[in-house]
Amino acid sequence: MLVNSKQGNLISIRDRGLLYGDGVFRTIRALHGKAQHWPLHYQKLQHDCTALGIVCPDFALLSAELDRLLTQHPDGVVKLIVTRGLGMNGQGMRGYAPSAQATPTHIWDISPLPAYPVDRARRGIKARLCQLRLSQQPRLAGIKHLNRLENVLAAAESDDADIAEGLLMDAESNVIEGIRSNLFLVSQGKLITPDLSRCGVAGVQRDRVMAWASQYNMPLQVRDIRLDEVLHADEIFVVNSVIVLWPVRELEQRCWTAFPVAERIQHYFNEQSAR
Amino acid sequence: MLVNSKQGNLISIRDRGLLYGDGVFRTIRALHGKAQHWPLHYQKLQHDCTALGIVCPDFALLSAELDRLLTQHPDGVVKLIVTRGLGMNGQGMRGYAPSAQATPTHIWDISPLPAYPVDRARRGIKARLCQLRLSQQPRLAGIKHLNRLENVLAAAESDDADIAEGLLMDAESNVIEGIRSNLFLVSQGKLITPDLSRCGVAGVQRDRVMAWASQYNMPLQVRDIRLDEVLHADEIFVVNSVIVLWPVRELEQRCWTAFPVAERIQHYFNEQSAR
Repeated sequence: MLVNSKQGNLISIRDRGLLYGDGVFRTIRALHGKAQHWPLHYQKLQHDCTALGIVCPDFALLSAELDRLLTQHPDGVVKLIVTRGLGMNGQGMRGYAPSAQATPTHIWDISPLPAYPVDRARRGIKARLCQLRLSQQPRLAGIKHLNRLENVLAAAESDDADIAEGLLMDAESNVIEGIRSNLFLVSQGKLITPDLSRCGVAGVQRDRVMAWASQYNMPLQVRDIRLDEVLHADEIFVVNSVIVLWPVRELEQRCWTAFPVAERIQHYFNEQSAR
Repeated sequence: MLVNSKQGNLISIRDRGLLYGDGVFRTIRALHGKAQHWPLHYQKLQHDCTALGIVCPDFALLSAELDRLLTQHPDGVVKLIVTRGLGMNGQGMRGYAPSAQATPTHIWDISPLPAYPVDRARRGIKARLCQLRLSQQPRLAGIKHLNRLENVLAAAESDDADIAEGLLMDAESNVIEGIRSNLFLVSQGKLITPDLSRCGVAGVQRDRVMAWASQYNMPLQVRDIRLDEVLHADEIFVVNSVIVLWPVRELEQRCWTAFPVAERIQHYFNEQSAR
């Protein structure tokens, strides 16, 4: 664990990351000493910092620290947090308004890869529909920020170990994402993924699936999706940087048994990480 | 500063307060060694913890710690944070789902009272209308939780030192609150305050104003309010535990010069804290 480039696992109780959730984060898979798609993660980090007006730490600095971390822990889940830094200036001023002088805090943490059943990627997962509805906030949509109480409440709805993911709708009944993943539908030869301009988190794996579609000339639509369309899709699957890609085999009485497009993407992803 | 009953100003980078904003807080005014309205603050804390499924620390424990803190620092702004605690169990499990075994973290901090110009309470403040619109999330509405990025973004909109508060509307153009305060209107002998069942924070001072209205038989309405109604009110004022009560003398080209109801409430509040 590193906090502002120094070994450590503690931060100040006056850090705005704690006080207001005023920061962003990334979750990265480390494999054989290599952080998967690190440049893409940095791009997202930089985008998200800019959206909140936080100065993003330098790529070279973060890359060097990541290398140092991976030398000791070559495999696992790396979490990188960047907050706006301390919430008070020298005069003890406090409050929501961010100070232009604040120095961002950056934190590295690494933990073992969760022991997911291996057949989830092959046989697909059982998913559920969350009761909680995501609120719409265009100013924060797409950003992987630290205000994640909606995800916490949605995750708390079920402790059924058999259900591997919950799908979230917004207040207007658009299907948006999984609690910790992005969602794709395959329908009549097209790939469809929810529009994330009002809520949701736009992850790195979502971009990679979209890049795959472009490379293999599969038509792609980014737009609002209703539950009915999800349940009538030929395939649905969820992606994130740790699980990579899980097809869904069961959701709300609908079952799927074949995942040909999901398998093609998995194959492509496997080849990419093997290189 | 106390963290889990021990002197200190650091918490774990794996605390869910930082990772997800998974916690609640209170801001309390300390005056001559006495925490103003501490039992009311505790009630709110308990309510908010319950709403998130966090076990609220015991009243007796917190009261004893607060006394200890106030012996050293009799005057200032006390901040109390309660988070759901560490985000991983012994097996290194991580993720949004809260663990039933998590032990909440509780944090005390105290800082000097901000040096507000004294005439704000008497002459009133200049307020502005924020561009940011609050999102509607009934599951989190009213709760003083740690997901406060909307407040941060709203506060960042203006650095005009002459403007003491920003008023927030929701996406449907209801006026909800100030960035760090609750809002009241006086109109035709009635007191009106926004309905906070879809967004906003229901503070202790809001309850106190409502209790005053009940005690002095002033009709009170809690309901949706449009901007037009705010601008046509006989008086408007904002309240929180640190500023107590500031009348608004200027908002969007509308000026107010007399605050008879606000003054009556200020007088009542002053008498109460003098006791």
